Amino acid sequence: MRTDTVPADADRRRTVVALGGNAIAPAGTGGTAEEQTRNIRRAMDLIAELIVDGREIVITHGNGPQVGNLLRKNEMAKDVVPPMPLDWCVAQTQATIGYQMITALEHALEAHGDLSTVVPVISRVEVSADDPAWSDPSKPIGPFITDADEVERRRREDGHDFVDLGERGWRRVVPSPQPLRLLESMTINLLLDAGAVVVANGGGGIPMVRTGDNLLSGVEAVIDKDLAGALLARQLHATGLVILTDVDGVAIDFGSPQERWLSKVTASELRAHADDGEFARGSMGPKVAAALSFVEHAGMPAAIGALDDVLGVVRGESGTLIVPDDAASGDRS
Amino acid sequence: MRTDTVPADADRRRTVVALGGNAIAPAGTGGTAEEQTRNIRRAMDLIAELIVDGREIVITHGNGPQVGNLLRKNEMAKDVVPPMPLDWCVAQTQATIGYQMITALEHALEAHGDLSTVVPVISRVEVSADDPAWSDPSKPIGPFITDADEVERRRREDGHDFVDLGERGWRRVVPSPQPLRLLESMTINLLLDAGAVVVANGGGGIPMVRTGDNLLSGVEAVIDKDLAGALLARQLHATGLVILTDVDGVAIDFGSPQERWLSKVTASELRAHADDGEFARGSMGPKVAAALSFVEHAGMPAAIGALDDVLGVVRGESGTLIVPDDAASGDRS
Repeated sequence: MRTDTVPADADRRRTVVALGGNAIAPAGTGGTAEEQTRNIRRAMDLIAELIVDGREIVITHGNGPQVGNLLRKNEMAKDVVPPMPLDWCVAQTQATIGYQMITALEHALEAHGDLSTVVPVISRVEVSADDPAWSDPSKPIGPFITDADEVERRRREDGHDFVDLGERGWRRVVPSPQPLRLLESMTINLLLDAGAVVVANGGGGIPMVRTGDNLLSGVEAVIDKDLAGALLARQLHATGLVILTDVDGVAIDFGSPQERWLSKVTASELRAHADDGEFARGSMGPKVAAALSFVEHAGMPAAIGALDDVLGVVRGESGTLIVPDDAASGDRS
Repeated sequence: MRTDTVPADADRRRTVVALGGNAIAPAGTGGTAEEQTRNIRRAMDLIAELIVDGREIVITHGNGPQVGNLLRKNEMAKDVVPPMPLDWCVAQTQATIGYQMITALEHALEAHGDLSTVVPVISRVEVSADDPAWSDPSKPIGPFITDADEVERRRREDGHDFVDLGERGWRRVVPSPQPLRLLESMTINLLLDAGAVVVANGGGGIPMVRTGDNLLSGVEAVIDKDLAGALLARQLHATGLVILTDVDGVAIDFGSPQERWLSKVTASELRAHADDGEFARGSMGPKVAAALSFVEHAGMPAAIGALDDVLGVVRGESGTLIVPDDAASGDRS
């Protein structure tokens, strides 16, 4: 662990880095443990460059494919082993991905002569019992199901909700409530101030509601991990949010002959594009929404770009840099 | 989080509390999530008394029934979902049990007006690649199997080892190497010094070996959680180790007319009883071995007793207190 205490000023460059689930699991599957380990090592080798570059880093990550696999196991074994609720599954993926990340990142840092400690924090997020999402489950999770009888049975027996996706079958949908407050921010701040690199709020965090006597209880829901990453960055007073994905950045008229990649935009410009319906729901849409949420509330920049070029993205040399409206007079167009 | 920094002297009463897996899961099963949550809340209500009593507490816990259930799911779903290795399963149980513990313990502490933060630490333990346990897998895990064909197939296809338990069937056995070093002690110390209550090293910790280039890798093994708890207590310079179970303490001639409960013994006296074969392997034996390991190496007391009377056990008023040989001149017989 680094022994210098990082001063609480703008120079500390505290950056929250959000990694997509596809940076960990092979496309479309949860992957074997070996595949996940290999992908995580590759991602951590890249992230290590940011830390060696002098930044205070908090990593957050997706878990969609991994949770999907846990839900399949739940279903297949349910006559023998009691299924674990969705919030327990989120916790499980925080541990497996987190444990692989600390091991890989500490090793990558050692290769640079950096002996920083890396700590994965099991992270809960408070959501409201009154969130409108509870009556409108909309987030698809788990595998496609093609057997209509199974869908009917699970609706009846397990109370699960499903969305009909036509020829591809059905998928379970769960509520995706707004993240209100990360419950682990004191722990994360303490670790960061002591020089640790922190992995936090994997999969958007474990959703918790307050019940009658003020007791927190886990609930079956999924919090959008980019939106939760933006909240994490705000609560930690980060100086930047970096959302990493497998494309080079944000494009307008994506896939058309007029396609145009944005290198630097103000929050207002990007919001106008979003309001025009430029960004696909479930794909670039949530990333743009999360970046805007951070830039507009924190008055600090965000970036969206490719994991493969993370150092360039963080430095604003590649990817899409989103700046507050009053900071738009930069030298980069 | 408490703002006072606990001084590093003998008065700080840093106590490691080891909870058996049966304090969490109903006997013989992993239990439903609801059952585990209920048991964890009950245990944390009791542990809260120790913290309110002014002790610095690190909680460690078993995970046998929970890991058994994850292995069953692995097996039942393996044609569809890649099975997770045993070290990943241990990590998963650290997260689910840890997340329930922090939620329950913070709530219990709040009822006493104590706003301490509770942090579960995903914990790895280094073991030796040369440990003799690798060639002698002896720790039974997972369910009983009664189908000889399944045992033969898994021996052949998965390379699993099994022990024949006669009429009850077979059980998978895995190596149980000696814990050498907890890899998270810096993190745990940092959190304790900041006033947090820490949950650490669940299930004995995630076993890791060093491979060729000094990279740590998880391995399929199970570390004895009481032995790992004793190492945890030594590495954290704890002033006491408390092993909680469902019996009142340590007995000599257990189950016979001569049965005699020990209230206070020296390490030498207890070791003599252990050498006489008094304590059952897999039951009281590992608890006694762990307590002796701590008392003999650290020169500090350990206690073994019932969770239901945890405050009495910690105070030496009930259960079995094991003291260093040179501290035997106490007033309690």
